[in-house]
Amino acid sequence: MLTGDAVAALDPGWHPDNLAGGLLVQPGSTAEVAAVVEIARAHGAAIVPQGGRTGLVGGGITRSGEIALSLSRMNRIVRLDPLERTATVEAGAILETVAAEAALHGLEIGIDLAARGSATIGGMISTNAGGVLAHRYGVMRHRVLGLEAVMPDGSVLSDLTRIVKVSAGYDLKHLLIGAEGTLGVVTRVVLKLEPLPAATLTALFSLPSVDAVHLAVDAAGRLGSARLRMAEAMWKGYFDLTSAVQGWQDPAYDHAAPLHLALMIEGESRAALEPALLAVFEAVSDAFPGAGGLVSSSVRQDAEIWRLREDTEAVYRQYPMAPSYDVSLPLSEIEGYLEELGERLGVIDPDLSPFVFGHLADGNLHILMNRPGPLAELLANAIDAAVYRGLGARGGSFSAEHGVGSKRVGALRAHGDPVKLALMAALKAVVDPDNLMNPGKVVAPAAADPERMPSWTT
Amino acid sequence: MLTGDAVAALDPGWHPDNLAGGLLVQPGSTAEVAAVVEIARAHGAAIVPQGGRTGLVGGGITRSGEIALSLSRMNRIVRLDPLERTATVEAGAILETVAAEAALHGLEIGIDLAARGSATIGGMISTNAGGVLAHRYGVMRHRVLGLEAVMPDGSVLSDLTRIVKVSAGYDLKHLLIGAEGTLGVVTRVVLKLEPLPAATLTALFSLPSVDAVHLAVDAAGRLGSARLRMAEAMWKGYFDLTSAVQGWQDPAYDHAAPLHLALMIEGESRAALEPALLAVFEAVSDAFPGAGGLVSSSVRQDAEIWRLREDTEAVYRQYPMAPSYDVSLPLSEIEGYLEELGERLGVIDPDLSPFVFGHLADGNLHILMNRPGPLAELLANAIDAAVYRGLGARGGSFSAEHGVGSKRVGALRAHGDPVKLALMAALKAVVDPDNLMNPGKVVAPAAADPERMPSWTT
Repeated sequence: MLTGDAVAALDPGWHPDNLAGGLLVQPGSTAEVAAVVEIARAHGAAIVPQGGRTGLVGGGITRSGEIALSLSRMNRIVRLDPLERTATVEAGAILETVAAEAALHGLEIGIDLAARGSATIGGMISTNAGGVLAHRYGVMRHRVLGLEAVMPDGSVLSDLTRIVKVSAGYDLKHLLIGAEGTLGVVTRVVLKLEPLPAATLTALFSLPSVDAVHLAVDAAGRLGSARLRMAEAMWKGYFDLTSAVQGWQDPAYDHAAPLHLALMIEGESRAALEPALLAVFEAVSDAFPGAGGLVSSSVRQDAEIWRLREDTEAVYRQYPMAPSYDVSLPLSEIEGYLEELGERLGVIDPDLSPFVFGHLADGNLHILMNRPGPLAELLANAIDAAVYRGLGARGGSFSAEHGVGSKRVGALRAHGDPVKLALMAALKAVVDPDNLMNPGKVVAPAAADPERMPSWTT
Repeated sequence: MLTGDAVAALDPGWHPDNLAGGLLVQPGSTAEVAAVVEIARAHGAAIVPQGGRTGLVGGGITRSGEIALSLSRMNRIVRLDPLERTATVEAGAILETVAAEAALHGLEIGIDLAARGSATIGGMISTNAGGVLAHRYGVMRHRVLGLEAVMPDGSVLSDLTRIVKVSAGYDLKHLLIGAEGTLGVVTRVVLKLEPLPAATLTALFSLPSVDAVHLAVDAAGRLGSARLRMAEAMWKGYFDLTSAVQGWQDPAYDHAAPLHLALMIEGESRAALEPALLAVFEAVSDAFPGAGGLVSSSVRQDAEIWRLREDTEAVYRQYPMAPSYDVSLPLSEIEGYLEELGERLGVIDPDLSPFVFGHLADGNLHILMNRPGPLAELLANAIDAAVYRGLGARGGSFSAEHGVGSKRVGALRAHGDPVKLALMAALKAVVDPDNLMNPGKVVAPAAADPERMPSWTT
């Protein structure tokens, strides 16, 4: 166990309070995790499971008296079977490491995201992470075949099946997935793998409207000879910022378009993919004469285009701690929602303008405000309300892929289905009656000790 | 409500006892389902939700005093959005009906199975159905974006999101999925749709070994220009039976091979798919000189090949009520398992021989015995033990896609992880404290009334 200066010397990760509790344990096996849970339980100390500590919603922050339980030493790939297309890994394994190992066998995990170098498989499971391939391979929940977890009473739930078909009673791993460590500590998992494409090709389209984006994504999704891999949209404000920061410009490209869509398709060879991308472009420009675009001619240009999309730090450099949101919407609702959002933000402050970008094939939008944070409470609440309003009625979610953590406990309470909230509290009370697992995160149990609840969740 | 002769006049479906309770209600809306649940609750009457009544494990059987709640009138397609690729349907909608509607928009549900004409979407969700496309699109659990259910207290859990990315607290729909009606009544759902292929092509391979089957499936799964759609294997005994019953023979085909693999790939056109299938065949015959096969030359021949696989009734006609199993195994474990199973069955009775066929890309085997049922208890138990032994240790499951129902409650108790069993009972007790929802199925709560438990589950 690390304490005092030894903890203070560590990188706390994305949230400055991740190690604020001052106690860190790093068990090396499932049995050691169970031992830690039992000892903590005997002393009434709460446990906060931690992966890469790069979660964005404060799911890993610790307070005095809480034990940070890091899975960093449990980072082994236990088994990777190319025939079965399964990888059994410990929860602390890093996404990028597992992906590299799978690639040696021509396989991939079917999930990819910008934090690939820090995100752990266990953390991604606990937050039900998404990323750029979710339109096709689903989110983390859909990649997990088997799961092992240490429960709050120290027992081990063991369900390390390596097959997709199981209809053998309640599938309890799905309670742990997305629970952000509030119901137990995920220790090992089995992931489903997919074949890596032989070749990919990237294009960047300048488009006049959301409808044009949808048409492009739909056309790319219906190619017979190639498959859509990624479809990432950038609204003008975000594109202007990242392209300026990176000095990216192309005289043949329409920088002034209201929307930019980075597309990646995959297939047998770059040469074979070019006519497919051109067919997508023709379909779009037939319907929307204002459309333009370019097809990447090199791996270097591919990287430049994707960097435009992935460089979210550009916003935070200009607006430190800018208020950020991670919402999802059915595709047919995106345009109407953004129109209303713009109006609502304009009422709050005519200069308030969102940077919008996201995964256009699955409806996940990231929205950052052009303001440094943290905002005064009144303004913060007004913007929260403007962003969250109507998401549920439109069939979307106020939290798409980052989780609830500490940051969105209030939003879940305000916007969650009341029956769901009551059931969540009841399940938490059954599985973790002493509220020892990541207390105050995600669910706020009725019987929780108010001293333990962070003030911003109320 | 139907009673007496009106119920007796109905088709009970696959299990003769499905309507044995003698009471049937057919609510027409979620509100009516909630009203039924509240009335039943007030009278302490148990409810058995029913879909197509073609489940294979007795999940829908009713006993005296229990109310069969059929979703048959709630069979509407509420909304089908081709852009979003979502279908919102009532739980009683028939798989085939929804698939036909989706096909009008060039889309499919991503799940297909032989009972497509009777299986309801709600029933498929409750049993977490699988079928022939699961290796690619997952099982029913992976096709559900949103779900609405009437809970045992009459409240309505409403989570009709139409997006794949939700990380907003515990995902309670996954408790209902696969719970076979023991935690509530699924009333409406949102399904994710996928693009329909432009063309498909079918082949039938005669193969010398399981390894050869794996190689063929793997090669078909890595085609750049085409995609593997179905891979269904038939071991010799099953193939001999269905091909004889259907009078199927082809002088150029090796009927004596130990294994037969029906493959379907998809792509832009039949013509473009032919070289892809031939490439798969070459890869297999290079490694296994004994391999043979034929590529279908017509839609009619396609249908003939698939009928060989789907005609499971051929077994039951010869061995009425033959003992049947539905297990799943990681691909690398299939050969070893079947070898051991053969040995174990031989010890019980040298003439005992299993018909084996199944979904070779996802490891789901269906195993039927060459005996009419029901067997004497001692023999039945011995065969159960032979089939189930080692499945968990091999990373598989004793129940893959049919569910637990009444038939496999004992197997779940014998082979389920003890922590899982304890948690299941605890969750059931919280969500359905009076044990009113499909009592005696799937989970046997500690406090269950022994009078209510069917005798064969003990």
